[in-house]
Amino acid sequence: MPELRKDPITGRWVIISTDRGKRPTDFVRDSVQIKGTGFCPFCYGNETKTPPEVLVYGRNGSGKDTPGWSIRVVPNKFPALQIEGDLDREGEGLFDRMNGIGAHEVIVETPDHQSTLATLPEKSVEEVLWAYRDRMLDLKNDKRFRYILLFKNHGEAAGASLEHTHSQLIALPIVPKRVREEVDKSKHYFEEKERCIFCDMIRQEVETVTRVISENEHFIALAPYAPRFPFETWILPRQHSSAFENHQSPIYASLARLLRDLLRRLDGVLNRPAYNYVVHTSPIGEEINDHFHWHIEMMPKLTKVAGFEWGTGFYINPTPPEEAARFLREAQI
Amino acid sequence: MPELRKDPITGRWVIISTDRGKRPTDFVRDSVQIKGTGFCPFCYGNETKTPPEVLVYGRNGSGKDTPGWSIRVVPNKFPALQIEGDLDREGEGLFDRMNGIGAHEVIVETPDHQSTLATLPEKSVEEVLWAYRDRMLDLKNDKRFRYILLFKNHGEAAGASLEHTHSQLIALPIVPKRVREEVDKSKHYFEEKERCIFCDMIRQEVETVTRVISENEHFIALAPYAPRFPFETWILPRQHSSAFENHQSPIYASLARLLRDLLRRLDGVLNRPAYNYVVHTSPIGEEINDHFHWHIEMMPKLTKVAGFEWGTGFYINPTPPEEAARFLREAQI
Repeated sequence: MPELRKDPITGRWVIISTDRGKRPTDFVRDSVQIKGTGFCPFCYGNETKTPPEVLVYGRNGSGKDTPGWSIRVVPNKFPALQIEGDLDREGEGLFDRMNGIGAHEVIVETPDHQSTLATLPEKSVEEVLWAYRDRMLDLKNDKRFRYILLFKNHGEAAGASLEHTHSQLIALPIVPKRVREEVDKSKHYFEEKERCIFCDMIRQEVETVTRVISENEHFIALAPYAPRFPFETWILPRQHSSAFENHQSPIYASLARLLRDLLRRLDGVLNRPAYNYVVHTSPIGEEINDHFHWHIEMMPKLTKVAGFEWGTGFYINPTPPEEAARFLREAQI
Repeated sequence: MPELRKDPITGRWVIISTDRGKRPTDFVRDSVQIKGTGFCPFCYGNETKTPPEVLVYGRNGSGKDTPGWSIRVVPNKFPALQIEGDLDREGEGLFDRMNGIGAHEVIVETPDHQSTLATLPEKSVEEVLWAYRDRMLDLKNDKRFRYILLFKNHGEAAGASLEHTHSQLIALPIVPKRVREEVDKSKHYFEEKERCIFCDMIRQEVETVTRVISENEHFIALAPYAPRFPFETWILPRQHSSAFENHQSPIYASLARLLRDLLRRLDGVLNRPAYNYVVHTSPIGEEINDHFHWHIEMMPKLTKVAGFEWGTGFYINPTPPEEAARFLREAQI
């Protein structure tokens, strides 16, 4: 008998098809393969083909926009939002509009065209996280912004238009709806119980065991109780923390270790799937609070999302999270 | 300069990329083509290969599950939910669960394997709408259900696993999140203003003109102000009506005419795209009200939705709705 499960954070219901639970091999799709053919603006020697870099790690001596870097952050050449201008807010009868002020940047995670975040050394993954943090802290000085979205599209099926491994960041003058809902829901829970709903969830998941995928000293990876997608996985700090960008040194090393570990498990179990992940952190100006617990939501791209799922906020997931967690837990990496 | 626009019904913000607005020919993807090869359980002669029919139109005389029908509704052979059993609700610490009781049916829209909803005669499209209504009215007698979702996936890219044209219906023991939000938001608006927000929106759109695609005596098709997807289109009754299933005869003929007209415009402008549509009607038990205005949301499948859009409820749309509406309005059909 299938189950209807409700996500306690967002209030979203999903159908979990326990009967005909899909196993990893049931998802027939292409592995992400790096062809490495043709021109790549993220490889050494092509630095002038991107907008000028806004952050670089690893380069010594030589000038801006030259080779020798280990991480490079550049504005997106085709940005969804524009950085210049004042923010204009306007109503038009029922409708609300702003001009599209924002930042849209690309974090090039390595000069090596053949690597992925799963195959890079742990130290390089940690550098990527530091780059996320540095750019967030810098952009938060811009008073026009309310939220900074960090995300990664890996593989063409997940929306990546360039194969050279990279993440993206969008700074927005509004807080996205789903983040706002999560924060508000968590706040409401805290007001009632004086506890963080994510901390409660982690406590329950650790007791239940079946949905835990892996953990280390600072982080836990788990299959959420009501996942929208097969093999959806969340990474959360074990201790309460409301902002991704507010941690100190050992935390990012620990996160790099767990993130890389999870990506390698996904690659092993699902044969190098395309995936997306997003970082959910607190909105700007509300960074330090007791109610919201920042986390990463990882979504392998295994199924086609049909219209009624967008049209209703209601999902059918053919793989119970307990099974997904077991496969990922038992993966040889 | 791109724009940030807020949907007044759901509160969702989207980026509309006005600068690099994508025209229909910029969306490179496969047309939906009907191959007609291989076994099809929805063609004449294969009636016994589906679960027994629950509704049929057009067959005279001969027995159940035989050829001669014009519309046939059958339970889904691989249902997401099961029809038998009592509803069990259960808590598990933080989490809420129900067993997956529900109905999952398929509306086979024609015996002709080569037709689509756009190429069928108007009268046949009207029959499809009557079948939607008949099944909804029947399932609403089942006290376990709170909502009936009507939707259509057309083309493989939109999630259709069989090419013979069909719609689907899922009866649920809960109200899906996005429908609940729309209903609640509309109710709140009505309490403040004593007006339906959809009626206000239609009035404004008719005055603005630029986002109206087509209209007839009872319905209007328009590009919403803050569409998630390029060429997203909504069809709404011009007069306030809170439930799809509560209309009388001339209304469905009028809707069939406008729906078919819109599908032909999409086929022309976008070269027979895959698409999804969903019907948003009032929840069961709240059918007659002044605040919620039922409608159809049509979403052509032209772009890959990336993870951050799911992860955030925030969309980037490369085609301004004013341009999409102009292309569809000017389409030769």
